[in-house]
Amino acid sequence: MVDDIFFDFLHIEMVNVFCPQNANDSKEINVSKLEEIGFMTGYRFSEKSTKDCQRFKDELDVMKFICKEFWSSLFKKQIDNLRTNHQGVYVLLDNKFRFLTQTSNGKQYLDLLPKYLAFTCGLIRGALSNLGIVSIVTAEVVVSPSCRFQVQVQRT
Amino acid sequence: MVDDIFFDFLHIEMVNVFCPQNANDSKEINVSKLEEIGFMTGYRFSEKSTKDCQRFKDELDVMKFICKEFWSSLFKKQIDNLRTNHQGVYVLLDNKFRFLTQTSNGKQYLDLLPKYLAFTCGLIRGALSNLGIVSIVTAEVVVSPSCRFQVQVQRT
Repeated sequence: MVDDIFFDFLHIEMVNVFCPQNANDSKEINVSKLEEIGFMTGYRFSEKSTKDCQRFKDELDVMKFICKEFWSSLFKKQIDNLRTNHQGVYVLLDNKFRFLTQTSNGKQYLDLLPKYLAFTCGLIRGALSNLGIVSIVTAEVVVSPSCRFQVQVQRT
Repeated sequence: MVDDIFFDFLHIEMVNVFCPQNANDSKEINVSKLEEIGFMTGYRFSEKSTKDCQRFKDELDVMKFICKEFWSSLFKKQIDNLRTNHQGVYVLLDNKFRFLTQTSNGKQYLDLLPKYLAFTCGLIRGALSNLGIVSIVTAEVVVSPSCRFQVQVQRT
């Protein structure tokens, strides 16, 4: 078990390297690299952490796993609220998202927050992908540190 | 506490993104980014983890802290052997370095191993820097997964 604070520091430094504050171009590319690292890490981690699980019943069952076991093993808390329109859209609300607890919630910093969400969006998308669900994951800050992740399942 | 395996996966993905296998140029720049992330993470983490420590007596005392507490909190084991020439060179031997335990030790892969050491070299250099020791840290694989880190203290 690695100290949580080490994980937090490592995440901050990844953000700093990929999205330096004084960057004035190719920001999107950098955020997508963070998302990419998250995706592959989430993909592998969900494979490992579900290997002794029972088969999931359905999509909602997978989503509950993400909200409970997956989230707990990374952030030491569960997702606070899960909603769905039963048509492939799921909204996961974390009222105290750990990667935002150290950031200021002043309005002038709101634009800086998305880079702190990209890695985690990737984690969710990767974990779901490994469990057979192709999705688009986006996130928005409600009032920092409260954060809403939206999963849109891509059906083929 | 974050699952060790998650930390391992995250490290592998950082390596994959910064040093993709099919890269044919600017390899050094990428390895230095990994080292940079390691440096800042190590810097912050050693600040946090020594805040309730007694003041270190001397350089060797700092080095022992790195080999014991610091290493244990990240890799769940201590450095196996610490040697010094008492002139500012320290050699830290880890007989089972975790980031190498999953890699092949076939000779044909030896060239690929340095990228798995850069982040950790940065961690050591950052931790030492926070504790007042400016250094150059290099690493070499003895026989994978055995790894030797060399610290050269830069005196002013």
